[in-house]
Amino acid sequence: MNRPSEQSPVGGFRARLHTVIFEADTPAGKVFDVALLWAIVFSVAAVMLESVSQVRTHYSDALHVAEWIFTVLFALEYVLRLIAVRRPLHYARSFFGIVDLMALLPSFLSVVFPGAQTLLVVRVLRLLRVFRILKLGHLLGQAEVLLTALRASRPKIIVFLGTVLSIDVIMGALMYMVEGEANGFDSIPRSMYWAIVTMTTVGFGDITPKTVTGQFLASILMVMGYGIIAVPTGIVSVELAAATRQHVDTQACPGCGAQGHDPDARFCKRCGTALDWTPPGTEGETG
Amino acid sequence: MNRPSEQSPVGGFRARLHTVIFEADTPAGKVFDVALLWAIVFSVAAVMLESVSQVRTHYSDALHVAEWIFTVLFALEYVLRLIAVRRPLHYARSFFGIVDLMALLPSFLSVVFPGAQTLLVVRVLRLLRVFRILKLGHLLGQAEVLLTALRASRPKIIVFLGTVLSIDVIMGALMYMVEGEANGFDSIPRSMYWAIVTMTTVGFGDITPKTVTGQFLASILMVMGYGIIAVPTGIVSVELAAATRQHVDTQACPGCGAQGHDPDARFCKRCGTALDWTPPGTEGETG
Amino acid sequence: MNRPSEQSPVGGFRARLHTVIFEADTPAGKVFDVALLWAIVFSVAAVMLESVSQVRTHYSDALHVAEWIFTVLFALEYVLRLIAVRRPLHYARSFFGIVDLMALLPSFLSVVFPGAQTLLVVRVLRLLRVFRILKLGHLLGQAEVLLTALRASRPKIIVFLGTVLSIDVIMGALMYMVEGEANGFDSIPRSMYWAIVTMTTVGFGDITPKTVTGQFLASILMVMGYGIIAVPTGIVSVELAAATRQHVDTQACPGCGAQGHDPDARFCKRCGTALDWTPPGTEGETG
Amino acid sequence: MNRPSEQSPVGGFRARLHTVIFEADTPAGKVFDVALLWAIVFSVAAVMLESVSQVRTHYSDALHVAEWIFTVLFALEYVLRLIAVRRPLHYARSFFGIVDLMALLPSFLSVVFPGAQTLLVVRVLRLLRVFRILKLGHLLGQAEVLLTALRASRPKIIVFLGTVLSIDVIMGALMYMVEGEANGFDSIPRSMYWAIVTMTTVGFGDITPKTVTGQFLASILMVMGYGIIAVPTGIVSVELAAATRQHVDTQACPGCGAQGHDPDARFCKRCGTALDWTPPGTEGETG
Repeated sequence: MNRPSEQSPVGGFRARLHTVIFEADTPAGKVFDVALLWAIVFSVAAVMLESVSQVRTHYSDALHVAEWIFTVLFALEYVLRLIAVRRPLHYARSFFGIVDLMALLPSFLSVVFPGAQTLLVVRVLRLLRVFRILKLGHLLGQAEVLLTALRASRPKIIVFLGTVLSIDVIMGALMYMVEGEANGFDSIPRSMYWAIVTMTTVGFGDITPKTVTGQFLASILMVMGYGIIAVPTGIVSVELAAATRQHVDTQACPGCGAQGHDPDARFCKRCGTALDWTPPGTEGETG
Repeated sequence: MNRPSEQSPVGGFRARLHTVIFEADTPAGKVFDVALLWAIVFSVAAVMLESVSQVRTHYSDALHVAEWIFTVLFALEYVLRLIAVRRPLHYARSFFGIVDLMALLPSFLSVVFPGAQTLLVVRVLRLLRVFRILKLGHLLGQAEVLLTALRASRPKIIVFLGTVLSIDVIMGALMYMVEGEANGFDSIPRSMYWAIVTMTTVGFGDITPKTVTGQFLASILMVMGYGIIAVPTGIVSVELAAATRQHVDTQACPGCGAQGHDPDARFCKRCGTALDWTPPGTEGETG
Repeated sequence: MNRPSEQSPVGGFRARLHTVIFEADTPAGKVFDVALLWAIVFSVAAVMLESVSQVRTHYSDALHVAEWIFTVLFALEYVLRLIAVRRPLHYARSFFGIVDLMALLPSFLSVVFPGAQTLLVVRVLRLLRVFRILKLGHLLGQAEVLLTALRASRPKIIVFLGTVLSIDVIMGALMYMVEGEANGFDSIPRSMYWAIVTMTTVGFGDITPKTVTGQFLASILMVMGYGIIAVPTGIVSVELAAATRQHVDTQACPGCGAQGHDPDARFCKRCGTALDWTPPGTEGETG
Repeated sequence: MNRPSEQSPVGGFRARLHTVIFEADTPAGKVFDVALLWAIVFSVAAVMLESVSQVRTHYSDALHVAEWIFTVLFALEYVLRLIAVRRPLHYARSFFGIVDLMALLPSFLSVVFPGAQTLLVVRVLRLLRVFRILKLGHLLGQAEVLLTALRASRPKIIVFLGTVLSIDVIMGALMYMVEGEANGFDSIPRSMYWAIVTMTTVGFGDITPKTVTGQFLASILMVMGYGIIAVPTGIVSVELAAATRQHVDTQACPGCGAQGHDPDARFCKRCGTALDWTPPGTEGETG
């Protein structure tokens, strides 16, 4: 996603197009973004409604027309985006470029494979762009804190998933042997599905142990599984705390080098040296 | 909620009325509050009992009479409250004013729409007022800590809910395509309901995947969903820790009076004054 | 529970009895405790087995005999305990005295009310005493940390339970109105049971919303409920962290009064003063 | 698991064998490990597929042949391992030696007891060895952090499990009395299974309370259980935070080499030496 080149203006008509489509600072850009936002929302809503059989029987044609109007509009928008950016291929290969294309294809696919238009819900991902353009900066900052927390705990999460999968395979095979096909555990993969349903404490109840041994094994799996499943929460808590602290912790005292000051600190809590050496006129901006 | 004006006395009869109704310091006020507490509890219990068919067949009339007695009592109380406060409109538009009115309307509504009296359970919210009047201050302090923790994590929660909703829409559509109407996933909205039931680990089991692909997708949703759902717990933990710490940290700077210093701070982070000015003999007391 | 007086010896036979029954330091006392431990375990197991119909049909008489043997043994033990302590009434009114009595009564009750012997499982609480006598001190220390954590968060937990109950009442009434008796929500109390099953993410699936409105309300309840239910975990985490820290955090520097030293610290991390003023010969004991 | 002796070379052919089988540094060793990895994966996949009845009816013979080929290969590998190590008995009794043997036995068992080959999934544990050999060191480091966290909280976990078990026994007996066999609670062990399903918030729904008293007791168990079950998450969070902190804290004292100082420590907590002896010009580097 090489946004700098994607967003650099290209002069004349394309420059104006770029301003309208990619930026939200001008009135025209704002109107375009809000229109896009509603178009996406209505488009996804239309796909959802079409799946409801009562609606489909009565408004099938209307929804079909709406779907194609949205598809044409989004296709037009896609072409305009390709024209507006300096390096069209770059945009086409970027995350949003791919999402924009994927938001069009299902309509054409549905001509060959009926039902494929359900995939149009992928358009919901396009809302991310509007999100970004509407400068909901503080929300994105929070999203980054969450992502940092998750990324930092990736090795722990891989180890955790490996453990869950091993327990899942072994418990799945054990329950398949103990309960057997008569009680719904009719293959190891299905038993593994049951074990995941149980370990994650979802517990649908579509498959349940009937024998005493099976219920005993299930009880152990539940208690053990709960403990194991408690790990991600612990990981996220610890990493969130660290990520939140890091967000804050970036200021070293010019006098003694101490760190860990509060975001609103103006003097070092260790030696009393003033932390910000900014001239008095701009002090109000630090905040 | 402009409580100061709501509670300021108005002299004469209205002043005495105000003391009885809005305050709990005098004996009369205490009696009023305790009577109100029990009236609310009995009133809500009556509504609940009326919904049980065995009770309704036998005691329908008694419960009906009780309901109207409570309604008349609460209506009287509402009018007295309007009289007792200096600015009746202010009270009527405050949170408790609206709750007090909403606790009356369903009785009258039920004349036109039978069954509307069920809404009388909204009276349970009136207990909040008694809670406040009975000066359960330390509990409210804790409620504030909880609320501070939740408010501080609002941006994180919005990002989290957005993520949950996007996964919900996309998984709902996928499961609708994979499982289809034959297996209970008969529309995208219903599939989305299933996806939320699954992601929150509730797992009713009223709709469950039957195909291998569906069970595989469901397994991924459960494990992934569990990780995502672990986020609110992490957020609440971190923010609660922060809110608790702030509550504790009350050392005020002797130079400028600033608060919120770290427990190991030795100089005010605002003005640089040394925080502990205690004579050597009492140094052991600084905690 | 005035244990000092309960355990103080009384001379002669009663003193020796007291040593055997209440203490685990002598060989006789140890034998008594281990025998008691196994008697309790076997007694509870017998009650459990009797509830299994296949076992009951075949071994009913044997289990009945075993039950009465255990009851006579425990009754004898109870009488001996009353004799051995200096103030029998004190023991009879203590927590363990009441548990010991409650572990006898169901057998006699079952003569009048068949089935009452199931209550004999209360004997499982008697294991707590063995636990205490076997000097599993470090486990009790951990139990205390857990209890301190829970006690410290009591006000928060009360506020939390109040919120859960209010949401439960209001959601229960709403679902009763929306879904009605046809879909299993046949009274407000039953609807409230469903709301608790849903909010705690248990999700039995015995009652589930069928209407679109009901499923929408349920979805909101689940997501909201999940957030609310995340609170106790957050509370426990924060308080456990605090309780663990307090366990450690008890040493103030004699030089500068700084606190928060690690449990293995020997010099103040702030000013370098030695933390423990103990003579060299006993230094090995600090640990 | 005495790995040093197990892995020390023994000269000549056995030395080369050892290098290939136990080490992953040479090209031959790497090829062996990758081949082993795939053999394990395919072998486990074959066992899983055999359990699916559609697959079994069509490919029963092929899967049977594959199973025996894998068994012969793994048996050969087991013999070669025994030859390659200096002390074969030591290897045979180590964790991986036992797993390697257990990965062979089910095939031979299945000749006598049909269906025993399901136990072959135990081969999934052999992946742990590959994991170790492929030097996924940073992942193992994280696994150690997780294990340290779990081990440190063992006493708390024992107390927690004891509490859960006691509540389980008592609630199981109560529900057996209240609901009885008519509603599925047909023995105390089955009631205890239900109580664990409920307390861990799994909630299959195969057994559910039908009476009002039973639903009331269940509601209490759910809310109480949720609080109790929140404890492991809290424990893991706190211990994970501690384990992570320890991992980070590596500043060594220049005087005595002691580690584990707090991030804000200025003097060694062991010997009192100032921790930062850096010349003034580089003070900014102390982090």
